[in-house]
Amino acid sequence: MGDLSDPATLISPEERKTIYIGAFVHSKSLEELDICEKGAIGVDERGRIVFIEREDSHVESAIKKHADWADAAIVTIKDKGFFFPGFIDTHIHAPQHGNAGIVSKSTLLDWLNTYTFPLEASLSDLAKARRVYTRCVSRTLSHGTTTAAYYATIDVAATNLLADICLQKGQRAFIGRVCMDSELSPEWYRDESSADTIRKSKEVVEYVKKVDAGKGIVAPIITPRFAPSCHHDTMCELAKIQKEHDILAQTHISENAGEIQLVKELFPESRHYTDVYDTAGLLNSKMILAHAVHLTEDEKILIKKRDAKIAHCPVSNSALTSGTAPVRDLLNRGITVGLGTDVSGGYSPSILEMIRHTILVSRHRSFEDGEGAKLATEEALYLATRGGAKVVGLEDRIGGFEVGMDWDAQMITLNTVSEDGEEGLENPVDVFGWESWEDRIGKWAYNGDDRNTAAVWVKGRLVHQRKSYGL
Amino acid sequence: MGDLSDPATLISPEERKTIYIGAFVHSKSLEELDICEKGAIGVDERGRIVFIEREDSHVESAIKKHADWADAAIVTIKDKGFFFPGFIDTHIHAPQHGNAGIVSKSTLLDWLNTYTFPLEASLSDLAKARRVYTRCVSRTLSHGTTTAAYYATIDVAATNLLADICLQKGQRAFIGRVCMDSELSPEWYRDESSADTIRKSKEVVEYVKKVDAGKGIVAPIITPRFAPSCHHDTMCELAKIQKEHDILAQTHISENAGEIQLVKELFPESRHYTDVYDTAGLLNSKMILAHAVHLTEDEKILIKKRDAKIAHCPVSNSALTSGTAPVRDLLNRGITVGLGTDVSGGYSPSILEMIRHTILVSRHRSFEDGEGAKLATEEALYLATRGGAKVVGLEDRIGGFEVGMDWDAQMITLNTVSEDGEEGLENPVDVFGWESWEDRIGKWAYNGDDRNTAAVWVKGRLVHQRKSYGL
Repeated sequence: MGDLSDPATLISPEERKTIYIGAFVHSKSLEELDICEKGAIGVDERGRIVFIEREDSHVESAIKKHADWADAAIVTIKDKGFFFPGFIDTHIHAPQHGNAGIVSKSTLLDWLNTYTFPLEASLSDLAKARRVYTRCVSRTLSHGTTTAAYYATIDVAATNLLADICLQKGQRAFIGRVCMDSELSPEWYRDESSADTIRKSKEVVEYVKKVDAGKGIVAPIITPRFAPSCHHDTMCELAKIQKEHDILAQTHISENAGEIQLVKELFPESRHYTDVYDTAGLLNSKMILAHAVHLTEDEKILIKKRDAKIAHCPVSNSALTSGTAPVRDLLNRGITVGLGTDVSGGYSPSILEMIRHTILVSRHRSFEDGEGAKLATEEALYLATRGGAKVVGLEDRIGGFEVGMDWDAQMITLNTVSEDGEEGLENPVDVFGWESWEDRIGKWAYNGDDRNTAAVWVKGRLVHQRKSYGL
Repeated sequence: MGDLSDPATLISPEERKTIYIGAFVHSKSLEELDICEKGAIGVDERGRIVFIEREDSHVESAIKKHADWADAAIVTIKDKGFFFPGFIDTHIHAPQHGNAGIVSKSTLLDWLNTYTFPLEASLSDLAKARRVYTRCVSRTLSHGTTTAAYYATIDVAATNLLADICLQKGQRAFIGRVCMDSELSPEWYRDESSADTIRKSKEVVEYVKKVDAGKGIVAPIITPRFAPSCHHDTMCELAKIQKEHDILAQTHISENAGEIQLVKELFPESRHYTDVYDTAGLLNSKMILAHAVHLTEDEKILIKKRDAKIAHCPVSNSALTSGTAPVRDLLNRGITVGLGTDVSGGYSPSILEMIRHTILVSRHRSFEDGEGAKLATEEALYLATRGGAKVVGLEDRIGGFEVGMDWDAQMITLNTVSEDGEEGLENPVDVFGWESWEDRIGKWAYNGDDRNTAAVWVKGRLVHQRKSYGL
């Protein structure tokens, strides 16, 4: 038997069965958390959850029931913490991690030309791309993001490099080469032609599938940047590639007034923004639409009908003055919603931060729509895990702890404030000891950060552990 | 000569002149930062800034110009960081630090009865009060809060204890015993009578003045909780105490619709909420009004006329669904505004977090009021420092770096991401090296936290340094 302090466990955790002992918390439904104060979760060599014992956290009892687990590694929860499902970032621009925290005084379209495109273009330098992408993946893993839907750049080699880095670091990722063949994009940062877009997209799809080699860690995702970046015919071709390979697609929709007006002018024959994607064959159940702030009634009905998914990006929507997305309305219609950081329209790489902002933004929305628009902490935690899993089509594999699902998880630690009140300021969450489980989870959700994420696993593999944390 | 790694400097920094070497940043005006890339600031034994050299950061040059500073201690900026003025929290409930991160599903009035009052009442246990207050002061210092306007509880001994703790830890603080003599407050948590309120308030005023003994670290502040907590006559008496001692006062105003309605019912003879304080003699230039979300035109005019100050609490206003305060409008009228965490209506003890939320909330306000309502990063940094200083009447002493002002400052450190992108995840801000000074400050403002605050000084005394930081 070993534990996390055993280096052998760290090096090749996939090769060993592991029992995770201690409290675990995950979403039972949109409104309700399942809090198990004493659990034992058995994860096999492939990273699959094989058993969940809820009544007794003692290793001996778990092993007695599961006789062939006697040689399993043991990972015990530390510091009165709990295991929580890994977060799913349904919308993030990996190259823009280099700009995270630079917030424009302007809005979307200016922002793209001033900050976004120049940085993305510069990442055709593979050394620079490696530095920024490595940082982005390490940083998001440290915040507990076990799955990310990435936009890379238009560059094939740099996009393939992002896949390599995710694979090496073990972050589950959808890798999207950004498609931009419209003359509206700057001459120095766009594909040469529609044919060029299609050829390069296919190259990346094939490369990512090849390097993943069935491991199920990285997958390609078709990524027309947004309607103003692509010709209609190009989008039609991209939809064909998506269908042929049966893979996800992602794009932006209805983020900002100026952008909506631009789409109207560029696609006069379309009924609305959503219709642009629909007529191209891209509005389907494997499409992730980021933002969806200003959708009309017709558009919401169509999105629900096609079962397309929504990535809600609260920080970006506020920071770029885009608007206040009607998340409750979308949920009430049965539309699937997950959370996205939208780095660097959003400044933070942390989905925990998105949880807080989802809640706060929903309160701002309630000033218009009434009390019903407010989202509770439990609901935001659901969107960050189960919701995100549905958005990326992996609800049977990730987002919660169920037998048969993968161990994509984070160990959350919460120290207790010392009696003299002085010690342990390194942990940002102040738990005094009198809190209920719900209150402790709330304190983590509102004041926690990467310091509370002591360890992160994807498919049973340890992919991050906090430095200076004595695991 | 010594530096910060010299223990002697740490133990009694006040007794030694110190030269702070390196970049410094502070607000020149609401719209503009003063960024000095190479500075030398001389601080005397009393913690007063005596000289500021802008052209050359070399110690030798500074000393050559200031011959009598040859034996001064030297503190050099680390990690390409900068000195920044300490933050001023113009509205924080010290006891409620125990509840920070527990966010109500409800609104203000329910919240008070369910969470706030029971915790406050329990702090008549001085051991518990010591633990929570010590934590609150240590925690806020670690976030760079060098000055705080505190609400304590109704308990005299516990309130005096808060003054002792601030004095011992060196945080500049206004200490308010909370006045609540209205029968609307719970029987188990209110003053016995108006006379009791006045007597206890005087006791605390006298105690705090006595323990400060002219050091200028702690001062009393008259604190009628809010209009529904106090009888009119009691507020009139409190105004007399304020005038007699020439001290600050603080209260809440126009936070939430239910509260505004309640005030209307309780004070039918008043023209509006602001008038309740005005007729009691409390609306004056030394009054800090927290929230001010829903003020009418008349009220804004009256507040400007009386020169009362506003504590803007963006996280609390969103979290409790109170509303979106019209900060730009208040500023345009010439009303003085600072930032407040309002722990625990606001979940975060960090003014840096309030800076971000001030900006985001202003964008939400702009959806109603137009572009002009948006606040820039520079403006929010101003409100957190110079603005806060004006709110607490110390604009000649703190909030910026000027000769004659006190050294209330923080050392902000920003590591550069390593070439391989792997190292230094402990620092939450990713600086790659290509950023302008403005962009680096932005990255800190949006993604920074207490890990970037390596050291904090009040009146030249080192009051916090980051653990594990090799000063």
